[in-house]
Amino acid sequence: MPESVRTRCVPVPLARVQITGGFWGPRQEVNRKVTIPAIYRQCKQTGRIDAWKLDWKPGQPNPPHKFYDSDVAKWLEAVGHSLATHPDPRLEALADGVIELIARAQQPDGYLNTYFTVVEPDKRWKNLRDNHELYCAGHLIEAAVAYYQATGKRRLLDVLCRYADLIDATFGREAGKKRGYPGHEEIELALVKLYRTTGERRYLQLAKYFVDERGRQPHYYDIEARARGEDTNLRWWRETYGENFYRALQAHLPVRQQKTAEGHAVRAMYLYTAMADLAAETGDRSLLAACKRLWRNVTERRMYITGGVGASGRGERFTFDYDLPNETAYAETCAAIGLVFWAQRMLRLEPDARYADVMERALYNGVLSGVSLDGARFFYTNPLAMYPAAAPYSGKHLEPIRQEWFPCACCPPNIARLIASLGLYLYSEAPKTAYVHLYATSRAELDIGGRVVTLEQETQYPWTGQVRIVVHPERAWRFTLALKIPGWSRRVRCRVNGHLRNLYSLTRRGYAHIQRAWAPGDVVELDFALPVERIEAHPRVRMNCGRIALQRGPLVYCLEEIDNGPDLRDIVLPRGIPLQARFEPRLLGGVVVIEGQGCRRTWEGWRNILYRPAGSRYRPVAVRAVPYYTWGNRRPGEMLLWVREG
Amino acid sequence: MPESVRTRCVPVPLARVQITGGFWGPRQEVNRKVTIPAIYRQCKQTGRIDAWKLDWKPGQPNPPHKFYDSDVAKWLEAVGHSLATHPDPRLEALADGVIELIARAQQPDGYLNTYFTVVEPDKRWKNLRDNHELYCAGHLIEAAVAYYQATGKRRLLDVLCRYADLIDATFGREAGKKRGYPGHEEIELALVKLYRTTGERRYLQLAKYFVDERGRQPHYYDIEARARGEDTNLRWWRETYGENFYRALQAHLPVRQQKTAEGHAVRAMYLYTAMADLAAETGDRSLLAACKRLWRNVTERRMYITGGVGASGRGERFTFDYDLPNETAYAETCAAIGLVFWAQRMLRLEPDARYADVMERALYNGVLSGVSLDGARFFYTNPLAMYPAAAPYSGKHLEPIRQEWFPCACCPPNIARLIASLGLYLYSEAPKTAYVHLYATSRAELDIGGRVVTLEQETQYPWTGQVRIVVHPERAWRFTLALKIPGWSRRVRCRVNGHLRNLYSLTRRGYAHIQRAWAPGDVVELDFALPVERIEAHPRVRMNCGRIALQRGPLVYCLEEIDNGPDLRDIVLPRGIPLQARFEPRLLGGVVVIEGQGCRRTWEGWRNILYRPAGSRYRPVAVRAVPYYTWGNRRPGEMLLWVREG
Repeated sequence: MPESVRTRCVPVPLARVQITGGFWGPRQEVNRKVTIPAIYRQCKQTGRIDAWKLDWKPGQPNPPHKFYDSDVAKWLEAVGHSLATHPDPRLEALADGVIELIARAQQPDGYLNTYFTVVEPDKRWKNLRDNHELYCAGHLIEAAVAYYQATGKRRLLDVLCRYADLIDATFGREAGKKRGYPGHEEIELALVKLYRTTGERRYLQLAKYFVDERGRQPHYYDIEARARGEDTNLRWWRETYGENFYRALQAHLPVRQQKTAEGHAVRAMYLYTAMADLAAETGDRSLLAACKRLWRNVTERRMYITGGVGASGRGERFTFDYDLPNETAYAETCAAIGLVFWAQRMLRLEPDARYADVMERALYNGVLSGVSLDGARFFYTNPLAMYPAAAPYSGKHLEPIRQEWFPCACCPPNIARLIASLGLYLYSEAPKTAYVHLYATSRAELDIGGRVVTLEQETQYPWTGQVRIVVHPERAWRFTLALKIPGWSRRVRCRVNGHLRNLYSLTRRGYAHIQRAWAPGDVVELDFALPVERIEAHPRVRMNCGRIALQRGPLVYCLEEIDNGPDLRDIVLPRGIPLQARFEPRLLGGVVVIEGQGCRRTWEGWRNILYRPAGSRYRPVAVRAVPYYTWGNRRPGEMLLWVREG
Repeated sequence: MPESVRTRCVPVPLARVQITGGFWGPRQEVNRKVTIPAIYRQCKQTGRIDAWKLDWKPGQPNPPHKFYDSDVAKWLEAVGHSLATHPDPRLEALADGVIELIARAQQPDGYLNTYFTVVEPDKRWKNLRDNHELYCAGHLIEAAVAYYQATGKRRLLDVLCRYADLIDATFGREAGKKRGYPGHEEIELALVKLYRTTGERRYLQLAKYFVDERGRQPHYYDIEARARGEDTNLRWWRETYGENFYRALQAHLPVRQQKTAEGHAVRAMYLYTAMADLAAETGDRSLLAACKRLWRNVTERRMYITGGVGASGRGERFTFDYDLPNETAYAETCAAIGLVFWAQRMLRLEPDARYADVMERALYNGVLSGVSLDGARFFYTNPLAMYPAAAPYSGKHLEPIRQEWFPCACCPPNIARLIASLGLYLYSEAPKTAYVHLYATSRAELDIGGRVVTLEQETQYPWTGQVRIVVHPERAWRFTLALKIPGWSRRVRCRVNGHLRNLYSLTRRGYAHIQRAWAPGDVVELDFALPVERIEAHPRVRMNCGRIALQRGPLVYCLEEIDNGPDLRDIVLPRGIPLQARFEPRLLGGVVVIEGQGCRRTWEGWRNILYRPAGSRYRPVAVRAVPYYTWGNRRPGEMLLWVREG
């Protein structure tokens, strides 16, 4: 396996990280026991699995859809990740069966796509802009890598290497090749994984080609459109995106010239993830600079407080700086997941808590909101306010209640694979440093300069701020334990073997570096103060002026109608009122709620009037906020994140 | 001319009302000198006038559009209204020429429509749901009536009577007739005007048929769609309007069963206007009840503070109770104009200041905002907040700057005809009562029980609250002068011939009834207190919670970026701060501005941060508000009506 020489800290492989309890342990269990089986059932019932039999014939109902392959691939990837830490022979046998179907669907030349094999075989590689062939290929590659890493079985990996070889032989700058690149990015990051797994540099080069070629002139999407005999001046695109409408696909400029996050948010996240991967593998400074510029644009101007990205449902897209509408927020679950991917890749480039903070923000809020507590229902979009009566009026995308499945079902298997692979996001290993990015009850074996260091972490984080880490180097030796100090933290106490250590002087870029000769059984105790925080948004976020969000640790809170009655927007939290955090074991599987005395207008005198001179009286009301990720798990109703401040 | 026996107070005909100065005099002058000529030029340049030559041939560019006839008709109507009070031989000659073109375009059977004569002659009357044949016919009838009333010339009226006769022979319940009705209402109210002008009861019966037939089952739009061989299950309609999607056209139920204002707002207003007209002419109590129910739904739950209606651009439509988004408000100029029509018809049914108040609210705000101060540029939509950067992202309908014309150009000629006919809205005459609905410098001759009473009104209203009315009955006699006490008024002083009169005891349904033996030269002086009012919206209007609107008299105010800097949503008007009204003669043609000391967040410490613990400091800022109708007449920029209250 090639060493990524230029990267300083790499994630600890999944097989060496067990999440053993705390907050995420039960979530992973639900993911294994409910979500992964539910997704399989949906894939089976909707024909996604059987599509691989390639027995659909023209004229029959329910042809495979262009996206189908990716859904099954993400399910397989989730299975792979899950098996890495939780072996399950029955699940593995089920997956092996699906893999066999997939393998048999591979065409003699290596091609592997259900839709373009049975439905429109003449359209293969004819429309990279709109069709999802390379996107589906990318997900299959990710699945193959995950499954191989978990089980050691090469069946799917070999199939995908053959397919990748075909793709490599088809696309590129060399004579006779198509100079195309995918309309929906994904294969780029997958090819980097394939390279890291197989050591085959062609895959890295192909990923680099796809990224470098993007947005160049003459524009490939124009060329292929003309080859299809189609107009290149697309009306809806122009109306939605303006003249340089390939920004929809991050193809309006070569990637190194892109300064703002544009277009479809999921695609953007996958592209930026690949760019960071390539910067790490190649040491390309211009690519790194582009990544950092885009990172700042997204996280400093275009990201919801939940870590959601992509404000508009029209194009599922980024809009403009500080434009973060709440009720109509698209904030697709997949986009928040993509942001987690990207953050992890940026962390690999430079351990900086800015990245880990965003990763944590997205995970605990805009990602986790995407799946119900019971693991069986999903949100595709994650608005920051829900007014159910308005949902039918804002296009089609607002869902007042969680759904079991979607016609375009990218989100459920995406969240399943992320939760199954959560271990990849907790720790990194570097030659002399063990990094802790996220606090979660877990046991991990890190390779620090060739020696094994086992970390045992125990915590009820984020409900409490106490974290206990037992350090087990294989024998005593000097290295650095780098502990992330979350951006939200204002006060942390640290004891090493019972002795207080002042972390502030040790903190660089948000990581407290405790360097010492660590001995087996050394104990680090952290205690983060977890006050209820009132957060304000930048004055330019016009939707949130005069409003605050409640946050405690990494969790953002929201109000739900079931706790607070309807018309949540009329609730006021006066400045300075005490807000208590209280663990409520019987609520929503056990959560810390935030409670306080707010107020709201009385309805006196409002009968048959719409406007009147101001001067309503306010009455005190008990206000209860629950973690945002838990919303929509009880009775349907209103939800509100940004609350009026009095 | 038939007498409308059941109506108690009818508008004074336009020829007997001269607006002689004050607020509206100059607006009418701009309308005559700039707007009406500009609309003619646009109609000429875009081929709308020449379309009547019927010389377009298949294969040629720029075929007439289905709406063209209505634009020319509204221009002609505006000319007619204008000539009624301001004779202008050159304008009349120009109009006569256009009328001659129109007259010659009439087909041998009486049919009169440019599009369906030259572009799709085989589609005549084939798709009442989508095509605008009856709508165009209605506007032509209105033009013919106005032109005849102003000039006495019957040329166009005769043409339209022939066309109306053809329509009457084509549609109805009788055997051999089509049982259809227009997808875009308009002809119903026009036919009532034609009946009132000609005395021909068939026109009234035809209007009644169109209104009564609407929304009945089996549904005519289904029948005609099937006859065209088309699907009756329309996807976009269903997605936008739900299963009973004919609510888009107020055709989901028979009109008497309609309880909420639904669908396309302009169409709804024109329908309700006709319903009120028919209730007045026929004494139909069930129709009156439906009008009153719909009136309450609109004005108590679905109307912007500007009098704008139709909240959503998707379908240009009503949505649901209390759903009044500001930035994406559609609030089409034509819909506010339609609300003025309807209010006037309701006033005819019962003199109640509720109707006059809404009429005044729409006129001074959501209607007048639709035309620039110089009369040459227009707003089609009238949002209550403008954030220019957001405009391109919300579909196509948000216009950050006023336009000279629109491809679908209904609004400019609509506002031209309304302003030209404003005299119709000021006074009503009843057998024993002279009603004053609006305060405006004017001279009117009322027919009160067969005797002429001349009212001379002088006022700088709405800039000041002083109104002086000199009453000139042809000789002294006893009748009632009913003066509207606006709903916003909390204190009014009244003197009759210098003697104070307490109006409150005389006020019924918002009109102060001064009954006395009026002698020539009697003087009524009114003095309405005009404090700056802070208005709040119903708690259920979720967009306006925590916000106030500034109002003074009938004028609603707004903040513009040019006066207050950008990021208007972050400006706070603390409770209790003094707000001064000051006449600013050099601003916007002379307006009263509202000024006070507000505050806004400082930008300290916001560099590179999107969220942070609340606790920004606020700095005092001078805040200046201008009348909403004047916005967008200076440099483009932000605008905000509902301002944060501190």
